[in-house]
Amino acid sequence: MLLEAIEHRPKLNWAYTVDKETVHLRIRTKKNDVERVFVIGGDKYAWDRTKEETAMRIFATDALFDYWECEVKPPYRRLKYGFRLESGSEKVWMNEDGFFNEELPTFDDFFEIAYINPEDILTTPDWAKNAVFYQIFPERFANGDSSRDPENVQPWGGKPEVDSFFGGDLEGVRQHLDYISDLGVNAIYFTPIFKAPSNHKYDTEDYMQLDPHFGDIDTLKKLIAECHERGIRVLLDAVFNHSGKTFQPFVDVQEKGEDSQYKDWFHIREFPLGVKDGMPTYETFSFEAYMPKFNTGHPEVKKYLLEAARYWIGEIGFDGWRLDVADEVDHRFWREFRTIVKEANPEAYILGELWHEATPWLQGDQFDSAMNYPFTYATLDFFAKGKTDAQKFSHSIATQLARYPEPVMQSAFNLLDSHDTPRALTIAEGDKNKLKLSAAFQLTYPGTPCIYYGNEIGIDGGPDPDCRKCMEWDESKQDLDLHAFYKKMIALRLEHSALRTGSFDFLHAEKGGSVVVYRRQDESGTFIVALNASEKEQSAEVGIEVKGEAKNGAGQQNGEGGSWSVLYAGGADTESKSEGSLSANGGKLTIALPAYGYAVLRAE
Amino acid sequence: MLLEAIEHRPKLNWAYTVDKETVHLRIRTKKNDVERVFVIGGDKYAWDRTKEETAMRIFATDALFDYWECEVKPPYRRLKYGFRLESGSEKVWMNEDGFFNEELPTFDDFFEIAYINPEDILTTPDWAKNAVFYQIFPERFANGDSSRDPENVQPWGGKPEVDSFFGGDLEGVRQHLDYISDLGVNAIYFTPIFKAPSNHKYDTEDYMQLDPHFGDIDTLKKLIAECHERGIRVLLDAVFNHSGKTFQPFVDVQEKGEDSQYKDWFHIREFPLGVKDGMPTYETFSFEAYMPKFNTGHPEVKKYLLEAARYWIGEIGFDGWRLDVADEVDHRFWREFRTIVKEANPEAYILGELWHEATPWLQGDQFDSAMNYPFTYATLDFFAKGKTDAQKFSHSIATQLARYPEPVMQSAFNLLDSHDTPRALTIAEGDKNKLKLSAAFQLTYPGTPCIYYGNEIGIDGGPDPDCRKCMEWDESKQDLDLHAFYKKMIALRLEHSALRTGSFDFLHAEKGGSVVVYRRQDESGTFIVALNASEKEQSAEVGIEVKGEAKNGAGQQNGEGGSWSVLYAGGADTESKSEGSLSANGGKLTIALPAYGYAVLRAE
Ligand SMILES: [Ca+2]
Ligand SMILES: [Ca+2]
Repeated sequence: MLLEAIEHRPKLNWAYTVDKETVHLRIRTKKNDVERVFVIGGDKYAWDRTKEETAMRIFATDALFDYWECEVKPPYRRLKYGFRLESGSEKVWMNEDGFFNEELPTFDDFFEIAYINPEDILTTPDWAKNAVFYQIFPERFANGDSSRDPENVQPWGGKPEVDSFFGGDLEGVRQHLDYISDLGVNAIYFTPIFKAPSNHKYDTEDYMQLDPHFGDIDTLKKLIAECHERGIRVLLDAVFNHSGKTFQPFVDVQEKGEDSQYKDWFHIREFPLGVKDGMPTYETFSFEAYMPKFNTGHPEVKKYLLEAARYWIGEIGFDGWRLDVADEVDHRFWREFRTIVKEANPEAYILGELWHEATPWLQGDQFDSAMNYPFTYATLDFFAKGKTDAQKFSHSIATQLARYPEPVMQSAFNLLDSHDTPRALTIAEGDKNKLKLSAAFQLTYPGTPCIYYGNEIGIDGGPDPDCRKCMEWDESKQDLDLHAFYKKMIALRLEHSALRTGSFDFLHAEKGGSVVVYRRQDESGTFIVALNASEKEQSAEVGIEVKGEAKNGAGQQNGEGGSWSVLYAGGADTESKSEGSLSANGGKLTIALPAYGYAVLRAE
Repeated sequence: MLLEAIEHRPKLNWAYTVDKETVHLRIRTKKNDVERVFVIGGDKYAWDRTKEETAMRIFATDALFDYWECEVKPPYRRLKYGFRLESGSEKVWMNEDGFFNEELPTFDDFFEIAYINPEDILTTPDWAKNAVFYQIFPERFANGDSSRDPENVQPWGGKPEVDSFFGGDLEGVRQHLDYISDLGVNAIYFTPIFKAPSNHKYDTEDYMQLDPHFGDIDTLKKLIAECHERGIRVLLDAVFNHSGKTFQPFVDVQEKGEDSQYKDWFHIREFPLGVKDGMPTYETFSFEAYMPKFNTGHPEVKKYLLEAARYWIGEIGFDGWRLDVADEVDHRFWREFRTIVKEANPEAYILGELWHEATPWLQGDQFDSAMNYPFTYATLDFFAKGKTDAQKFSHSIATQLARYPEPVMQSAFNLLDSHDTPRALTIAEGDKNKLKLSAAFQLTYPGTPCIYYGNEIGIDGGPDPDCRKCMEWDESKQDLDLHAFYKKMIALRLEHSALRTGSFDFLHAEKGGSVVVYRRQDESGTFIVALNASEKEQSAEVGIEVKGEAKNGAGQQNGEGGSWSVLYAGGADTESKSEGSLSANGGKLTIALPAYGYAVLRAE
């Protein structure tokens, strides 16, 4: 066994509590190096009576490693544990001190979950695990109230520039709730709507006021109420890393300099405020002089921002916050933020904008979830760009699954694109087949998928500002086939819990290949999804015996080795179909896919 | 290169901020596998202008791995970074996505310290890094006021039983401050002194009252004032995991059952309270019915305990808290605890009782340090028990050094024994030579050493209650040679900052060997410590060229390759000496050590 590859540490993604009784344990070994792993666990105060062995199963495999997992329910909420790894006749025991060739005489140096405290349980909102989001950039979605249009408003549908305004507003969103409901999504994520000079509103002027071009508080309340009536949750963007330049306290510092009572609200390097050699004399987001960074350690700043955090959730009824530039704000601030927001609404969803590994924010004390850009890159590299093969894609996904605790993965915000990136369709060089496959994966993968407004009807766009085009409301200019595809995939996801929170296993992802097949499974059913990312017909044969007992208890299902209904299938130049069935033979199922084909199957 | 062995993750011990400008980065590689490692870092918003390479150095090596470290000072407090690893002509680049055989075209997937926020800097009190502690179990140190003796008090010096009382008190400690000062320690750690029925006081009856057998508040204030006058800090034990059975709210629940207003202060499984089949019907510490576990998530419990935490620091003047059974209390509680304690005294030292890996508590948001039992085991296994060889010992120490951020290691509470373990002398089977070597290591190693009362005069004792014997005040029964040894080693440590916070490198620790030689170094000087854990004379030849630039900037020092003064040396049956010098020859220094010999050298 390659001992150097074996990794386990207390807490993090390796050992965490999911409810008052349950601990998830994980360990990493070199790929194909270890045949069996067991957890030896018990209560340290009653070892002999409680000692128990639990077999682990491989739940993910990437380029270098196998990742093993099991669930343990310690009888007295305390767990002392070590591992035994076996390969052929070789046995290795592991505790916190390292590796041993014989069974350890004591459990003294075992790892430990000292006590499962309810306060430390890693929970994320159930609704988020079951949501399909629709992201709206309010200035560009719909103009429902032209009396509120900014000056110099451009005709709807024009080419967006960095500073153009098209008059989109909240009333426009409200008027199109039928469209949104019809698409089938059950949550909306709004980029910022507070008063701000720019069209994107990431340069807030007042955290307690709506932007007057977007509407007034009554329009907003009406919009939220109508969303909630339709079962649609509403998430709002919070820009707590920096304010805008017209934010009153910052205006005060600009005017009064060192005499301003607000001078410690920001990080000022030198008075008077200005830009010297291209560099602001105060800390900013990036080097943007119009986005001064908050001193979030200052008690008054905290009080102001945390009151805003509470108000919009507790009094106005938003269902959560998406936190802009979340990684540049201190952890202390976010911990207090979580406490206040969850007090206002225990079911609020807290989503951090984090482009890289987010573990330090996802331990249960700060965010529920992160913008899952690593998902974005892996998905688009394979389906949209053809940059990776099926095996590499499956490895990227496995690495991600292993990196985070399960409740975090199940509410990870899985996006293909956003107002900050080129549109997926443009990354796919306009090929809608590739967009469809990317979306098919997004909508059948665990987590919280989010569709950027207009993707569903074929809107394209390069980097900002081009990715912020106006929504197309002329049906003759909408891609209705694409829309129908999105609608069907969303409906399938919302109909079948296994496609949301079921277990996830790759069944087929070969080196050099372009087909991936994976299984989603829970107590309600077993599903297979097959996706062909190439312009050629392909066929994949997959073994469908159950590899190990699924964690949720679903095991070999009736018919799993037998008949499979085709719930939805299609491909390039192929009429989508949602009927027919396939039969497995000797535990093998052969799935034929047309060019850019997709198929969602269900065990009969 | 063995890619499976390479480990780096954001934050934790791998990437942390030590001040507003400085980041420490670390990476792990297979032992002897990689020749050079470089960090490629820069500001993501000004990459081309700020990109810089920094060479890493190996700062620790254990059985399987080399651990590399470097310091980076990002110009705008933001750091995006990746690694380049080199071995011969092989080059490997590493970012968050894995390993690559060629230079990465972009830094998009690099690791990231998004922003150095002052609130997230990992600081521990400077005084703790420079302290030598003396642990006092008040009931057994000195009886200074017999008017306060408990009933049934036993004659001083009798055999301790689980429930015996000998009448020790705070006035007794005060009367012996000259003794404590003379020994040279500059901090005292008191096990609990709050009102409680037992002799150990871990079953608190009232968190706001001293135990009347120990003294009143005036005695305590006088004691603290006199300690502070002598430059001695005072640390107090806090038992916030559980109360005692006579704690008034728990008495109330015992009496009133479900009608008690305090019923949610504890975790009650079943009313009425009792013990059923040997198991309390409420959660406890271990299965001890007299130690009911607090519900530290309950707001009133928090308020009560946190007020106690504030009061004894802010109003009475204790310099910190040692937290009993710290790992069984929730992280939220400890975060609030830290905020309140550091508000009361920013220099307060927060020390958790954690017997195992303590990383989850040592990220700057909870504790400053942990009871370093892994240090205890490694040290005693080698010096006292002869269970390990020099190489294995050096590996255990290296693993520990690599596991924690530097500020945490520098305030790690390094003990040989405590009221919870057998005495080190007893573990060494009464061999004072072995105790001396253990203490010599303890007192020349980074961290916060703590001497359990009486070790310095030869008190022995097996497991609790035997390790809680009365202090011996009859000089004719004290081991004065041992006392002189302790006094000299403490004085050396406090005289030379390098022995406290300087860098630490093993120079000699061979497989099967019993001699370890290590270097401590800072800008004030370079020291070598040599310890021979065998009953035979041994000699060690060590290379004393500087292996890399020390992190604190101390490099090749004048005379380092040349002459070395013997500051202190001795061994079994050998008169201790503190004079003489040794000369290196061609970068090699030969150190001869008698049986159980020790030597502390300083570069001239
Ligand atoms: Ca409008
Ligand atoms: Ca007394």
